[in-house]
Amino acid sequence: MEPSDLISSIRTELGAVLSDGALVTDPDVVGSHSRDQALWCPDDGALALVRARTIEDVQETMRFATRHRVPVVPQGARTGLSGGANAVPGCLLLSLERMTRVLGIDAGERTVTVEPGIINQDLKDALVEHGLSYPPDPGSVAISSIGGNVATNAGGLCCVKYGVTRDYVRQLRVVLADGTLTTIGTTTAKGVAGLDLRGLFVGSEGTLGVVVEVTLRLVPTLPQPLTAVATFADLRHAAAAVADLMTSGAQPSLLESMDGTTLRMINAYRDMGLDDEAGAMLLMQSDGSGDPQTARVEVEAFAAFAEANEAIDVVFSEDPADSAALVAARRLAQTAYEHHAQSHGGGQLLDDVCLPRHRLPEFYDRLDEIAAETGLTLAVVAHAGDGNTHPSIFFDASDPQDVARADAAFDRIMEVGLELGGTITGEHGVGYLKRSWLARELDEGSRQVHRAVKAALDPLGILNPGKMFADL
Amino acid sequence: MEPSDLISSIRTELGAVLSDGALVTDPDVVGSHSRDQALWCPDDGALALVRARTIEDVQETMRFATRHRVPVVPQGARTGLSGGANAVPGCLLLSLERMTRVLGIDAGERTVTVEPGIINQDLKDALVEHGLSYPPDPGSVAISSIGGNVATNAGGLCCVKYGVTRDYVRQLRVVLADGTLTTIGTTTAKGVAGLDLRGLFVGSEGTLGVVVEVTLRLVPTLPQPLTAVATFADLRHAAAAVADLMTSGAQPSLLESMDGTTLRMINAYRDMGLDDEAGAMLLMQSDGSGDPQTARVEVEAFAAFAEANEAIDVVFSEDPADSAALVAARRLAQTAYEHHAQSHGGGQLLDDVCLPRHRLPEFYDRLDEIAAETGLTLAVVAHAGDGNTHPSIFFDASDPQDVARADAAFDRIMEVGLELGGTITGEHGVGYLKRSWLARELDEGSRQVHRAVKAALDPLGILNPGKMFADL
Repeated sequence: MEPSDLISSIRTELGAVLSDGALVTDPDVVGSHSRDQALWCPDDGALALVRARTIEDVQETMRFATRHRVPVVPQGARTGLSGGANAVPGCLLLSLERMTRVLGIDAGERTVTVEPGIINQDLKDALVEHGLSYPPDPGSVAISSIGGNVATNAGGLCCVKYGVTRDYVRQLRVVLADGTLTTIGTTTAKGVAGLDLRGLFVGSEGTLGVVVEVTLRLVPTLPQPLTAVATFADLRHAAAAVADLMTSGAQPSLLESMDGTTLRMINAYRDMGLDDEAGAMLLMQSDGSGDPQTARVEVEAFAAFAEANEAIDVVFSEDPADSAALVAARRLAQTAYEHHAQSHGGGQLLDDVCLPRHRLPEFYDRLDEIAAETGLTLAVVAHAGDGNTHPSIFFDASDPQDVARADAAFDRIMEVGLELGGTITGEHGVGYLKRSWLARELDEGSRQVHRAVKAALDPLGILNPGKMFADL
Repeated sequence: MEPSDLISSIRTELGAVLSDGALVTDPDVVGSHSRDQALWCPDDGALALVRARTIEDVQETMRFATRHRVPVVPQGARTGLSGGANAVPGCLLLSLERMTRVLGIDAGERTVTVEPGIINQDLKDALVEHGLSYPPDPGSVAISSIGGNVATNAGGLCCVKYGVTRDYVRQLRVVLADGTLTTIGTTTAKGVAGLDLRGLFVGSEGTLGVVVEVTLRLVPTLPQPLTAVATFADLRHAAAAVADLMTSGAQPSLLESMDGTTLRMINAYRDMGLDDEAGAMLLMQSDGSGDPQTARVEVEAFAAFAEANEAIDVVFSEDPADSAALVAARRLAQTAYEHHAQSHGGGQLLDDVCLPRHRLPEFYDRLDEIAAETGLTLAVVAHAGDGNTHPSIFFDASDPQDVARADAAFDRIMEVGLELGGTITGEHGVGYLKRSWLARELDEGSRQVHRAVKAALDPLGILNPGKMFADL
């Protein structure tokens, strides 16, 4: 079918069966929905946007796509960092962002059922009055949707103690490539009837089906943590303190690191009073699983390990406002990076490599080498307790040579990550950005299983093509 | 190929490439390895037994099986309760029970890598000196293997706080149907590179591949719990107390129930001093996540909810020996059931239905109806905090009518489970026993995905046929 005929079919055939207003063909609106927050990923060629209001809208879209073999790109809040939600040529964008309802909270079973478009923080807010929490807290917590979190198996700061999205998914309703609606998993605490397809769909980045409803396990309201901050001359000493703390059996509820470059960029953006003469800072919290005394013991253990690893300074905070300000400063890092980039050529590329914790010092050495070799500024924050690092590369986006250097540095970081026993992505996902690297991380058997599963569930290859599976 | 030719090929072709002594064709040994602990599941027709010593043994077995299209039944310790490890006609039994090594403990990363044949309790014991724990503790903890636990996504008593096997699997090495060895997942704390195939293989009951190595996440040594016991006139009141406690936000580390019939059978087997005039007992523990004060608060909350639900008696125990004896009494239930059955016609059929906690009182009413209708004795223990019930049906195995009644009761229990929003299996798995029920629990879309995934990974249908996928 010619593109113009296809657009005509979209308007008449698909438009006729969708909810009022769900189909958008205005090129400006389609264009503005054609990308997530990743750099360097193509985003051209979307034919139309479906803003699903109902599960039926999603089913009709997939039925249409199957009939006409049209690629479909499922989208949440488009806050992803790997291009997973970007348009591909000739595609339908299928946005779930208007499906934002909380469908039910079961306080006895400690579950909540939501539509996928609900923003993570909005869900957290809705749970407060029930005395329940949904822990996963990606950096994008205020702007990313639960459906997107499920699609990427999102992590966050709490993971070191509370795990990632997959640890909370009880049941999913999924629309398959042919439009079939199915329920996978159980709402009960346990269940082993058949294959655990939850694990397969969580993190599948819209390549196997479209998640239209999510039942999440919840936990009682997370306790107030105690907070400690330690500064070091460099990241290696900070990383050694992290390794010591984690080896000791402590269970921090947050354990983040920032290098000196990050500290200075944050203070330059907004004076958060961080000690930006330090080479590195660790931010640690313990909630003691509700017991202040346990929290105190763990925070003191952290201080001892920090001091044993030549910390410059260690301070505690028992004031919740103070603690919140420190976490807020950490959460400002990405904004501060963008602010810095604006006045330094515009380019910032954020990576996401997760390593065994004891390899972190070596990893940081290698980052220094990459910075020296390329002459580029690198800054790095990390969910240090999980070994999940986020190096950022700054470059002049108007200088093709600088762009090439940044691109090479980005690749080098993943290469080093693999070399040190890590993975190319701890939480951002593969998307378009890392599709070629996925093929390098997975062995041939795993690639074979990936291809087989993809062909089995999406035989026409219409679900988010050109991304995770492009190079497998 | 004629069976006799095939046996000859097994001896010459397969025997030549396996480790010395790995191939067993002695009919007595093969026969003794042809079943797990399930009732009523066929187990005839195995051609030979491979006792793999190495990953290569497993690969060679699968290569041979692929070449000759021979069914393979992977086996761990054969302690399963659903017939998943039973022979099928013309199969090779592929036992992993001789691969029992701990390959490495990484205290910093809090992981352990093991061969699949290691017994769960042996692993627990090996971790003690490292200050680490592997929580999952199925009833079979002393006799079941980690590989079998992975194959069935085993649960246990600790799940109410510490989750199930899948929550601890970081990385698997798997031999695929064609003999390809692949590594799936990462050893790092986080990782989202590609599909999460771990979730797919955990609980797949040997139908998608053979797990030959397992890297598990560990936690610091679990704290000593406080224990409380409450007795009630009946299970409904006990279940209401459970629902109240869990709704309150408490986090018990163990919350088990036993009905009066179970209490009497345990005392009849060995005098554990249980109050067997009660209609029901709850056994509750809290470890307070390491804080005795938190544990005390939770145990007191339990007592208050028990009393509010008309408990006959509530007692605490701070003595670890006393607590251990109470848990040991609970763990004796299955042995006591078998003891009772021996003098009452020999038949005992154990079911495994998981329900939303608030449906438990209704479920128990329905069990009473089933007992009354069939005239059979029913007893029930439950991982009550998870809503995971284990009703047992006692019958005269020599009386065909009694057997038929027991069979009908077993089915009725699953039917009621589904009707009340539960699942046909919380932790025992599908195997042969529940294959037809799996088709009733899953919707058509989910059955379609199951079939597609199975065909994709095992196109010749040689991996554990006639079990989980038989009726999908």
